[in-house]
Amino acid sequence: MKISRRSDIDAFEVMTIQQKVATMQAAGQEVLLLSVGEPCQGAARSVRETLARVATDGTDLGYTPGFGIAPLRAAIARHYADWYGLEVDPSRVCVTVGSSGAFLLSFLACFDVGDRVAVGRPTYPAYTNDLRALGCEVVELDCGPAERFQPTPELLAAAHAESPLTGVVLASPANPTGTMLDAQRMADLATWCRAHDVRMISDEIYHGITFTGSRGECAWTYDPSAVVISSFSKYWSMTGWRLGWMLLPEDLVDPVDRLTGNLFLCAPAPAQWAAIEAFGPEAYAEAEQAVADFAAAREVVLGTEMGWGTVAPPDGAFYYYADISPVLGPYATSREWCAALLEQQHVAVTPGKDFDSVHGDRTIRLSLSAGAPAVREALRRIQVFQQELASRVSAAR
Amino acid sequence: MKISRRSDIDAFEVMTIQQKVATMQAAGQEVLLLSVGEPCQGAARSVRETLARVATDGTDLGYTPGFGIAPLRAAIARHYADWYGLEVDPSRVCVTVGSSGAFLLSFLACFDVGDRVAVGRPTYPAYTNDLRALGCEVVELDCGPAERFQPTPELLAAAHAESPLTGVVLASPANPTGTMLDAQRMADLATWCRAHDVRMISDEIYHGITFTGSRGECAWTYDPSAVVISSFSKYWSMTGWRLGWMLLPEDLVDPVDRLTGNLFLCAPAPAQWAAIEAFGPEAYAEAEQAVADFAAAREVVLGTEMGWGTVAPPDGAFYYYADISPVLGPYATSREWCAALLEQQHVAVTPGKDFDSVHGDRTIRLSLSAGAPAVREALRRIQVFQQELASRVSAAR
Repeated sequence: MKISRRSDIDAFEVMTIQQKVATMQAAGQEVLLLSVGEPCQGAARSVRETLARVATDGTDLGYTPGFGIAPLRAAIARHYADWYGLEVDPSRVCVTVGSSGAFLLSFLACFDVGDRVAVGRPTYPAYTNDLRALGCEVVELDCGPAERFQPTPELLAAAHAESPLTGVVLASPANPTGTMLDAQRMADLATWCRAHDVRMISDEIYHGITFTGSRGECAWTYDPSAVVISSFSKYWSMTGWRLGWMLLPEDLVDPVDRLTGNLFLCAPAPAQWAAIEAFGPEAYAEAEQAVADFAAAREVVLGTEMGWGTVAPPDGAFYYYADISPVLGPYATSREWCAALLEQQHVAVTPGKDFDSVHGDRTIRLSLSAGAPAVREALRRIQVFQQELASRVSAAR
Repeated sequence: MKISRRSDIDAFEVMTIQQKVATMQAAGQEVLLLSVGEPCQGAARSVRETLARVATDGTDLGYTPGFGIAPLRAAIARHYADWYGLEVDPSRVCVTVGSSGAFLLSFLACFDVGDRVAVGRPTYPAYTNDLRALGCEVVELDCGPAERFQPTPELLAAAHAESPLTGVVLASPANPTGTMLDAQRMADLATWCRAHDVRMISDEIYHGITFTGSRGECAWTYDPSAVVISSFSKYWSMTGWRLGWMLLPEDLVDPVDRLTGNLFLCAPAPAQWAAIEAFGPEAYAEAEQAVADFAAAREVVLGTEMGWGTVAPPDGAFYYYADISPVLGPYATSREWCAALLEQQHVAVTPGKDFDSVHGDRTIRLSLSAGAPAVREALRRIQVFQQELASRVSAAR
């Protein structure tokens, strides 16, 4: 019986690693997890207590309006005033099933089959896989160290000249690199997009987890026709709750309303009620403590000499993206290197192929969300692993 | 800036009604809601208590595996043994973001852009709207009283002869009609689908809410290459929790795994943990009490003479789908009739246009989920409304 061609997208490599890790853990082995992009703090106590309360106090947990419950939409709008000085009308806030739901809805609302959509490479793989599953042509912009691994107007212009683009997906802080677009670069990209009628979709789910003094630049500061996507998963550490949101330009409100009413109905009601509390002082304080923990882990990796090549500047998020060609030893690819590291030293990191189909065989992504002590021990084990590789290579000479 | 053509699908008419109802309620008016397909009991006490417990007992609410947590998948598999005598391997159970998520994933996994997929008309509009948003060609089979408003092999064969079908979406009990496919009809459809290599997607979310002595026929009893879709929303009254599942034939496990890892990551973790308790004796008992309440409401409408035309046999679900042409009075369409009814008698019902683009102007759907007393009072007000219409019409002669 037929299976669709469009389901023939890449699996998430990191999920394969997680399965191997699960097998090792089931066999009683302790594994240091620097693979998954998941904060380990969990939701704030006040958020969890609110969930417990609405679970039993008779709160209606039936379908909510398609764009979410009014108090949550209002709280999200206030958050934009607090953090960015932006006035956001709650009617433009669409609460979604994680940022995943927001990507799906925005891609469907903005792009048709065959439309060309640009992403920077390296990239979060779900952007490209979702776009391909929805029939779009993904235009990967090769963004290296010179561009701080982020798209530029020049790269967009070159792609647009080949054949017009319909949209571009930006992420700042980015996954896997952690690099950020500063105000000037965001403004330049916004100017270019508006001049060329290219829809900007701005992934801002790592905002707040930053080490540059800025919480991240909101695309709406520069381009009100952009779609802004964010989430409770990262800063608020609510990954499994599947709750995110979009800020929608006016022209997309009705299309997204039609799509979400058919495709999703609404985001999870228990999580929506609890998430209002994420904007309370206790939850912000817990989130800031988590950011301090990530900063400490970042200091550990920045202060450890690993002998790696180019490393992306980790401005934000909790990732460290490095070229490990100098230490690959006998291995042809970072995938093989990562498999051996996991096997021998019980340290899980993610090979770059998930994020970069061209250069990913020589890169890895470390997630620092496990905290400074785990990162310190993981780096020590990686050093041991690398020394053994080096001595095997020199013995073979 | 561009908006996609594919987002130009129909909005859910029922949502427009809900907005008008919300405005009336905000103005202090009491409205009898026979419009939304939502049970009003809410989740079982034991499920809500479990949610409260996992909210605060330290349960990991991070990302779950893409197909869901193991104990929930095992509990779903046991449910198929209990209810249908079917042996289901938990590895074939994919927990989804409501049945909505299951439809999206199964449509993407089975059908490409341009593929022809059949649905019976009248139909649940999200099937057709989702399929169209994903680029499929929807083939509506005109199913009237002679077919009990359900597809037949003959109707499928006729459509297939025009140009081959790739799939068909079945629903039993159906929304909006409540009619069911009995064992013989399900077997005949399965035989036809397998003989013609047409994928059957079977919506079984109303199973258990039935009045025929059968809980509903599971498609896997007749065709293990079918996709079976179900949900906690209806029988267990957990609409806003956004939790459903699919049973997947082996050839679709990997494609759906790739798609869900990119499009959804996972279903909501708090709801997954709580839903295990839905398969406990207390939750089943509460669900059966709700079914008894729906049955009482159904008796009320079956015992009331309304002067309507053809009515679909309400075998299951909590709907009553009727041809109101004999009582339309001065109104050209059921949409206008429903608007006047809401305005004058504060009773909300859904015009048929949501479900049937061809014949829907003369039909309405009543949802009986509000219970017998509300349904009795609503029917009384509809009788008053219809008498006034009749006297206006005769006065005008």
